[in-house]
Amino acid sequence: MHAIVQTDPHNNRALELQKVDVPQLKPGEVLVKIHAAGVNRADLNQAAGNYPPPPGESDIIGLECAGVIADPGDTQRTTGEEVCCLLAGGAYAEYAAVPEGQLLPIPDGYSLTEAAAVVEVACTVWNNLGQIAKISAGQRVLIHGGAGGIGSFAIQLAKAQGCEVAVTAGSAEKLEYCRKLGADMLFNYRQDDWSKELKNSVDTILDVVGGPYLEGNIRALAPEGNLITIAVQGGRKAEVNLGLLMMKRLTIRGTTLRSRPRKDKAAIVASTLEHVWPLLANGSIKNHIHATLPLAEAARAHELLDSGEVSGKLVLEV
Amino acid sequence: MHAIVQTDPHNNRALELQKVDVPQLKPGEVLVKIHAAGVNRADLNQAAGNYPPPPGESDIIGLECAGVIADPGDTQRTTGEEVCCLLAGGAYAEYAAVPEGQLLPIPDGYSLTEAAAVVEVACTVWNNLGQIAKISAGQRVLIHGGAGGIGSFAIQLAKAQGCEVAVTAGSAEKLEYCRKLGADMLFNYRQDDWSKELKNSVDTILDVVGGPYLEGNIRALAPEGNLITIAVQGGRKAEVNLGLLMMKRLTIRGTTLRSRPRKDKAAIVASTLEHVWPLLANGSIKNHIHATLPLAEAARAHELLDSGEVSGKLVLEV
Ligand SMILES: NC(=O)c1ccc[n+]([C@@H]2O[C@H](COP(=O)([O-])OP(=O)(O)OC[C@H]3O[C@@H](n4cnc5c(N)ncnc54)[C@H](OP(=O)(O)O)[C@@H]3O)[C@@H](O)[C@H]2O)c1
Ligand SMILES: NC(=O)c1ccc[n+]([C@@H]2O[C@H](COP(=O)([O-])OP(=O)(O)OC[C@H]3O[C@@H](n4cnc5c(N)ncnc54)[C@H](OP(=O)(O)O)[C@@H]3O)[C@@H](O)[C@H]2O)c1
Repeated sequence: MHAIVQTDPHNNRALELQKVDVPQLKPGEVLVKIHAAGVNRADLNQAAGNYPPPPGESDIIGLECAGVIADPGDTQRTTGEEVCCLLAGGAYAEYAAVPEGQLLPIPDGYSLTEAAAVVEVACTVWNNLGQIAKISAGQRVLIHGGAGGIGSFAIQLAKAQGCEVAVTAGSAEKLEYCRKLGADMLFNYRQDDWSKELKNSVDTILDVVGGPYLEGNIRALAPEGNLITIAVQGGRKAEVNLGLLMMKRLTIRGTTLRSRPRKDKAAIVASTLEHVWPLLANGSIKNHIHATLPLAEAARAHELLDSGEVSGKLVLEV
Repeated sequence: MHAIVQTDPHNNRALELQKVDVPQLKPGEVLVKIHAAGVNRADLNQAAGNYPPPPGESDIIGLECAGVIADPGDTQRTTGEEVCCLLAGGAYAEYAAVPEGQLLPIPDGYSLTEAAAVVEVACTVWNNLGQIAKISAGQRVLIHGGAGGIGSFAIQLAKAQGCEVAVTAGSAEKLEYCRKLGADMLFNYRQDDWSKELKNSVDTILDVVGGPYLEGNIRALAPEGNLITIAVQGGRKAEVNLGLLMMKRLTIRGTTLRSRPRKDKAAIVASTLEHVWPLLANGSIKNHIHATLPLAEAARAHELLDSGEVSGKLVLEV
């Protein structure tokens, strides 16, 4: 088969379509013939050498795809079934070996290309806001990076759960995009003192910035509030005041989806299917596709995402 | 009635028995004629001016007591009923007004004096280990300050839940005391590198030290581990590496029992009654009383607890 191979580990754009072996199925896996693969920020981090695949997983880039089952392996699935898949790696290719628990049906009304771009973000956002923070109607949720792939999905999910949604973003245009997705309170992090304005009022924060936002996040949280950090784009380290954590009875968590055991992923996928797929089918959550490129142009897709000019997802078609 | 009054806010030992008004009952409260009151580290902090009572609560020191109901107020309780009580303040006195949800029966086989000394620690430890961390059989739990009032109760509770228990303490004698209570792994924090020895292996940590232990605690935690900080005796602030929190998928919490709304306290008390009272009755958990003093000698009791020579609880008898 063909797959994207990084030909120079020190050059994050050295991504070329090359011939490689079709992956061997392990017990409980199916072989999926890939129609399209979603591009994620983590893929760029992997190409830059900062985010290696978990041990035992494919070292081909790509965390999500959609296609048809070409070989059901030892599972009860049927050849030809259309599926979309949550992967720990291997989506930038013609075929991927996928644990059965990481297969989802194509959401009603979605094309394969659209489905390829929704799995990773849906599972990440639902796991964190739905399963871990258990957001519920009437709560206030703060989404940092509201205009990003995670952020724009999180805004819509939190609104669909009946929450009041505050967001941060880096420009008026991005904030306007967040407003259209349903965000109620908009903060330009280059100008506004969001932590002061939100002081002691936020039930759950989904953070992608990390260190530089920790103090502000703790300030913004209401008593019993939850901070979930899923990326440290601004830096890893910060000072924390544990006395304040005690007085406000706060919880701080870090999570990653990719490194979780397959059993956990299967549970997350099942819960996402139950709670999020209906919201995709009825249009409560829209997953905007910014552009579709051929698989061979993975490097250009990464360049585009790095430019910061993308609003919505990029998809690579095989 | 008589109660302990701090006659000089700048002198933490200026605790004198004086005449004050019997507390007025608010709706849902009963008046308890106090037989004995437990002494807690937090009482010393309050006398030192570092731990003021929550708004609206008695400013008399004392977080737990046992006695008999002298006036059931508007509740369905009966006069003469023996109870022990979780309080936000007011236990160093002849009478206290207690929200009905914060009353517990005297554990089977306990005297009123023994019951007075078990409520605060039982509710704190159960809430954190049982309700929040949800410790379960086979997990490894690390208890800092294992020889303290909280620690010695936590060791026994975690053992009763089937956990493997690691502890830290400051001397060989204290560690021997922990071992007798059931602790499996003993670390003298003045000599041993507990975080190195426990690296990546602990499911839940109950911490009373705070800042200086944060890095070690994060190191000791296993993937998906829980750190609960209930005191910052070593300092409030520390640097945290959020990237590490993400990679290990850790949770860090701060909690305090005293500042919680009455509704929460009632739920904690009910759960403690259900899960911990049977363990007191059958002797799985023993709450050792170090000494009993008359209420008038509150200052001496505080001095004694401050000496660090107390193993077990001090109780003031009215
Ligand atoms: N832990 C997990 O399980 C998991 C799963 C999926 C994704 N992630 C991570 O989550 C992050 C977001 O993913 P994504 O797909 O949404 O990426 P994305 O579409 O590139 O969006 C990133 C957003 O973060 C904001 N941002 C970046 N650096 C910032 C800084 N220093 N200060 C303030 N805002 C900053 C940007 O806001 P502006 O453009 O408005 O400046 C942008 O909207 C990535 O790091 C990704 O790897 C983690
Ligand atoms: N948040 C809450 O809801 C809540 C509820 C109850 C109690 N607390 C707090 O929890 C703490 C413990 O309560 P307690 O009743 O168990 O008090 P305690 O009986 O005085 O025990 C304190 C223990 O902490 C250890 N310790 C103190 N400073 C330390 C340091 N710098 N490094 C290492 N260990 C240290 C001591 O160990 P060694 O003697 O072995 O050195 C001692 O065993 C207190 O601060 C109390 O106020 C909080």
